[in-house]
Parts: sequence; C-alpha cells; structure tokens
Amino acid sequence: MLDKRYLLSQEALKLIIGNIEFRCLPKEKVPLQEAYYRITYEDVLAPEDLPGFNRSTVDGFAVKAMDTFGAKESSPAYLTIKGEIPMGGVPHFSIFNGQCASIATGGMLPEGADAVVMIEHVNIVSEDLIEVLRAVSPWENVIFKDEDVKKGEVVIRAGKRLKPQDIGALAGLGITEVIVSKKPIVSIILTGDEIVPHTEKVSPGQVRDINSFTLAGLAQKTGAIPIKFGIVKDNYSEIKATVQEGYSRGDIIIITGGTSAGIKDMTARVIDELGLPGVLFHGVSIKPGKPIIGGVCNGKPVFGLPGHPVAVYLCFELFIRPLIEHMMGLEEKSFKKIVKAKMARSIHSQAGREDFIRVSLEERNGQLWAVPLLSKSGLIMSLVKADGIVHINSQLLGVEEGQEVEVEIID
Amino acid sequence: MLDKRYLLSQEALKLIIGNIEFRCLPKEKVPLQEAYYRITYEDVLAPEDLPGFNRSTVDGFAVKAMDTFGAKESSPAYLTIKGEIPMGGVPHFSIFNGQCASIATGGMLPEGADAVVMIEHVNIVSEDLIEVLRAVSPWENVIFKDEDVKKGEVVIRAGKRLKPQDIGALAGLGITEVIVSKKPIVSIILTGDEIVPHTEKVSPGQVRDINSFTLAGLAQKTGAIPIKFGIVKDNYSEIKATVQEGYSRGDIIIITGGTSAGIKDMTARVIDELGLPGVLFHGVSIKPGKPIIGGVCNGKPVFGLPGHPVAVYLCFELFIRPLIEHMMGLEEKSFKKIVKAKMARSIHSQAGREDFIRVSLEERNGQLWAVPLLSKSGLIMSLVKADGIVHINSQLLGVEEGQEVEVEIID
Repeated sequence: MLDKRYLLSQEALKLIIGNIEFRCLPKEKVPLQEAYYRITYEDVLAPEDLPGFNRSTVDGFAVKAMDTFGAKESSPAYLTIKGEIPMGGVPHFSIFNGQCASIATGGMLPEGADAVVMIEHVNIVSEDLIEVLRAVSPWENVIFKDEDVKKGEVVIRAGKRLKPQDIGALAGLGITEVIVSKKPIVSIILTGDEIVPHTEKVSPGQVRDINSFTLAGLAQKTGAIPIKFGIVKDNYSEIKATVQEGYSRGDIIIITGGTSAGIKDMTARVIDELGLPGVLFHGVSIKPGKPIIGGVCNGKPVFGLPGHPVAVYLCFELFIRPLIEHMMGLEEKSFKKIVKAKMARSIHSQAGREDFIRVSLEERNGQLWAVPLLSKSGLIMSLVKADGIVHINSQLLGVEEGQEVEVEIID
Repeated sequence: MLDKRYLLSQEALKLIIGNIEFRCLPKEKVPLQEAYYRITYEDVLAPEDLPGFNRSTVDGFAVKAMDTFGAKESSPAYLTIKGEIPMGGVPHFSIFNGQCASIATGGMLPEGADAVVMIEHVNIVSEDLIEVLRAVSPWENVIFKDEDVKKGEVVIRAGKRLKPQDIGALAGLGITEVIVSKKPIVSIILTGDEIVPHTEKVSPGQVRDINSFTLAGLAQKTGAIPIKFGIVKDNYSEIKATVQEGYSRGDIIIITGGTSAGIKDMTARVIDELGLPGVLFHGVSIKPGKPIIGGVCNGKPVFGLPGHPVAVYLCFELFIRPLIEHMMGLEEKSFKKIVKAKMARSIHSQAGREDFIRVSLEERNGQLWAVPLLSKSGLIMSLVKADGIVHINSQLLGVEEGQEVEVEIID
C-alpha cells in the first residue's frame, strides 16, 4: 500500500471526464427571466437587428454632416430647426440642406440626416434657428440600425453561462425563452455509523453531518440540484440500496464517509456493481483527499469521498465542479481568482503528492502574507478561516517561508 | 456645463454611503439550509465543542504512546489487542500499559490511550497481538475534543457571507438557524417613451427593455431581491407616482432612462421630493455612466441611471453593489478577480475622468492581450463580448498599445 503509485489530480479527472460525453445533459427551454447563470445548449441567433433604426447617442440636433463642415465658434454654421423628433416614434419629416431637428439620446434619425451635433456644441438663436459651433463627421453620434447586433448573427455561443448583461441583450432582441442544459441532479449519500443529522444531540463518539451541507451548497453554486439521500450505516446492503436510489434519480452520485476500516472497499464494490466501467481510480495523490474513489457507471459519474470535511470540499472543487461544467457543456475562457502572497512559514510536502494548504491572508506593511492554517484535515474550521488555497504541485518538496506563492481565493 | 467639476466615482460613492448606516437592514432568522451566501448579522458562537471527544484521524490502533517509544521495524513493540472501538459509540474498556485497541478514522479514543498508530505501521501477529513498527508521540493522529471548535468561541463573525463550508461547520455544531441581514429590496423603474417590454414587437423608434433584466440579475447576484415596477412614460406625474410606489416598497430605488432632454431634471426633482437630503450628486466623472444621479431620501438610496445598457451595468458595479453590501453589513477581506494583460491598442482618455474600457482577452504566443471592445456606450454587445474591464483612472490620459494593464474579470 505504501508504495502504490497514485494518480495526480489532473490524471484522475481526465479518466472520469474521458468516460463522460461533453454536454451530455438534456436540453430544456426556460423563460428568459429564469435563465440567469444557466448554460446555453446551442448558439442563440439574433432574430432581428438591434437597435433596429439609426439612433442618436447624444442629446442635440440631427443634421446633414456636410452642412457643419468648417463650423467653429468664430464662424458657426446656421441651420433651421425643422421640428422635434418624438422619442419612441418615427420622425414625420425629412432633413434637407440647411435644416436640422432637435433629437434626444436614443431618438430615431430623420430621413436625410446623417449625424447629430451635441447640444453642448450648439447655440440656440431662436425658436427655429441654431448656430453649430463644431463640425461633425458623417454618422458621428449615431448608432446604426444593426450596429449593436445584426439579424442572424450569433449573439451568445453555446456553452456560455448567461450573465445578467447577456440576459439583458437577449431581452433587447425580443427573445423570451432560451435553450439551456438541464441542471444535473447531484445525489448525496452519507455513510458512517457515527454520523447523526445536524438537528440531533450528539452522544460521545458521534458527530453531526457537516458534509451534506457543504456539498449541497457547492453543487448549487455550480448550477446543479443537490438531493440528499440521508445518512446510512456502515452496512453493505443499506449502502447499496441507498446508492442505487441515488443513482437512479441522479446524474452524479457522491457517497461520503465510509471511513471505517472495511467500508472503503464496500463503497468501491457498490460502485462496481452499479454499472460499467465502474471504479476508475481508488486513491489520488492529493492531500487532503487521498482516499477518493472515482468511477463511471453506465455514463454516470459516481464518487466515494473520504469523510473529512476539508477533503470533501477539495474533492468537489478538483473533480466534481469541472465534471458538472463538462456535463452542462460550459465552454468559456475561465480565470481563477488568484492573488500573490509570501508564505508566512515553510511547509513541507512529499514528492509525487499534490498538497492543498489552506491559508489566511494578512497584510503586514503593505505586503500580503499567506498564513497556513495547519490542522488535521478533519478540522472544518481550517476551511472556514481560510481566504484561499495554496497548491503545492507534485514536483515540489514544499514551500519556503518568504517564498512568493499564488493563492487561489475561495469565493 | 462643459467645465463643471464632477465627482470621481469613489467620492460619489462615499457621499451616498456616508448617508446610509452600516448594516441598516433588519435582521431575520433563517433555517440553516436557506442561509447559503446570506450575510451574518451577528457573531455566531459555538454552543459546544467540536468534535466533542478525542478522535482518531487515521485507521489503526489506539495505544499509550509511551509503549511505542523506540519501536522500529528491526525491534517492534508488542501490544495486546484489548478490543475494537465501535464507530459512533463509546469504548467500554480502558487501555493499560502493553494494550491497544483497533480503531477507525473518526473513532473515539478509549480511556488510557493517548495516540493512534497507523495501520500501515503495524503487523498483526495474531487475533490479539500486534507488532508496532514505528513510534508515535503522545496525541499523534488524534484530534482533541475541542480542537476544531471550542465551546463559546466565535465560529463565524458578523458580516460574513456564508459559504457552503461555513454552513457545514454550523451544521456540525448543531446550529439549525442563523441570524442574517434581510435581503434588501431593489425597486427598478424604467422610464422612456421609446421603451417597450421585451415580449413586444418594436416599431421603428422603439427599443425593448434591456436594463431591467441586467439590473434584476445583478441585484440577485449581490444578494438583493429585485422588484420591477414596469416602464413609465417620460412624464413627471407618472414617474413620480411609480417612483413613490417603488420607494415605499423598496430599500434601494433605481430609476433608469430619462435620456430625453427634459427628463434628467424630472428624475432629479422626483428624487428631491421623496425626502431629505435628496439628490447628492448629479453627474460623476466616469465614462460610461457620467449622467448618473445619486441621492438619499430618508435613509433610502435612490439612483437615476442613464439608459445606456453598459452605463447601467457599470453604475451598478460602482455604486449599487458596494451599497447593498454596506447595508447588509458585509465585512470581509475582498479580492477582485484580476488578470494582467497587454493592451492590444492605445486608448485615449481625458484627464480628470475615469474610463472603463470593456476588453476581450486573447492569448497570442503565451501572452495575454486585452483587446478593447470599442463602441458607443449604448451597445450592449460590447459588454456581452467582454471578458473584463480595464479601469483608466482620472490621472491618466490613456493607455498605450503594449502597456501592461490590470483587467478585472466580469463574472
């Protein structure tokens, strides 16, 4: 056991993802106002031009640009005011040479006009006469009818997580429904003779459920729907029955716990019996989280996570979040929230193993320091207090005090 | 008008925040499972120790550490197995010198034992005898009963946004309800003769509502509850009536639009009439977003935003998000998601003005480039296509091509 070569986290993730089709969840149509942060299943095309008409971007006067050429404060151009453009309506007149029309931001350019002079660059001489103090070029201060979006253009690509401004753009195009990937159901099963629900008093030897709360929140944040299947005893037939229920209702199955001696093999056996190919790896070279079991059963990923709360968090971030995004078909440039800091004390690691150190960030004389929250991995408070995680890769033997490290912020 | 000195964004924000009490929203008690990402209103104290008993962190044998001193592969220590510790229960025996008990990760240490030897460092000789191949120090591989959390300790400070792992920790302590700040209600009122609902066909001169969708999504993301009060015409009495309704039901009021000439003053007048002190600034030296109006009326912030979709987004991020967090009492170290990139083309700015340039990020030969999405500020697509924003502060006259800039990623 001691010398067994375990996979690195990226290798383990690849093994699972290689067995799961990209964008494998079914699609569904949702009303626009419910599509925030959902992931588009297909490209969304513009059904029409936006804004749909030539529009002023400023308050001022619609003009023929030519009429303003050469205009300056010392020799303004004089234009007759033909009328006022109503907001939200079509101008019922055209502009000819020497004429202009008052227009507000967002107003529709009248026929004949090809630019707008800002109100700040105009003197209103009388009710029907202005002086233009500065020339405008053709189409200055105008948005073309299809300048924001052209009919037929891809507005949003498939695989994009819809941000508020994306929903705004779709609303602007009159799109009322969007086709998105269904939210995957994440089945959460806790095992362990010592685990009791959080609503119960504990007797010595017992601990309350921490992990289903962490996992449910992480799943929701990633865009999935968590379903809890309760706490089962360390007993093969109970575990098997509950996992089968979770498997039949869920798209991803997470079994946590099974920390007592014989149980790890029970979890692996249950996963193997669910379907092919079954368990793909048993143990990954990470700390915390090493005893993780990963498998795929008839196209559904199934994980056996260790019971340590910190390991559960980390395994979710390393394996389950990317997997959920893969299943939903997320295809975006992604950037991590990283800050650079100096390590406040040396941390030793083991060659071949990836270490994930929880750190709190402290500013001392303008320098940011990453203070390791050292603790046994069962301690949830080391995670609660952490601002971020320092990843020590498998090539390194540790990080020295004072060394600059990248801290991935926990959001 | 041209030479008027406008406030910088931070000055404008301070003016508003200075008139709004920190953590001014009422508190409410919510069930733990509904408290994800809510902001704690008061410190949460631990009602008991966690884990509550001395616990093994490994699978192995509970021992008296002393009995293992000097043990090595070539001269192991021999111990008698007294029994097995049941998971979730109290051991019904004590350990005396020369004895040990088999224990699983998470098991409770029996009386007399002060350390656990990992199973990997033991040879099981017979049913009741082991060889210990490596010494353990006192309390090695043990979590103390109050090592994760001590009774009475602050587990979560007031003003913290509850992450999944925080909720997990609270569950572990048997906490079933949390006191959090109420979600503020953000009243959204659109004005403009040219605006129609997104479900309607547009005639020339009309545009659909984009902003209420962007604002509602941003408000929700920040932890607020958006309520839309519909689209009102550019008409003083209609605007006044709707704003008053939004004001009486909301904690923060956002009026957008009012881009047509006389309307800006109407919005300011309506805000002034709502309560004291009324309008605090009219115009901020930012681009886009310059015409923003900010005020406070009897303790409630009221904003008049320009109708440009990009300006609306930006004004929310600059003014309304920090304000919501202030009202909810958020007190956290906060880190922005920033990446460094080289500017792909020169951008000129005006001294005294803050510019916010939407950029898309492109990797070319391993170097990240920020490509400005130049457009008139009405163009929502420049925001949809943006990966982030480059802030050009008021001291600068622009950014040169090839210059390194910080890009704040839009999430």
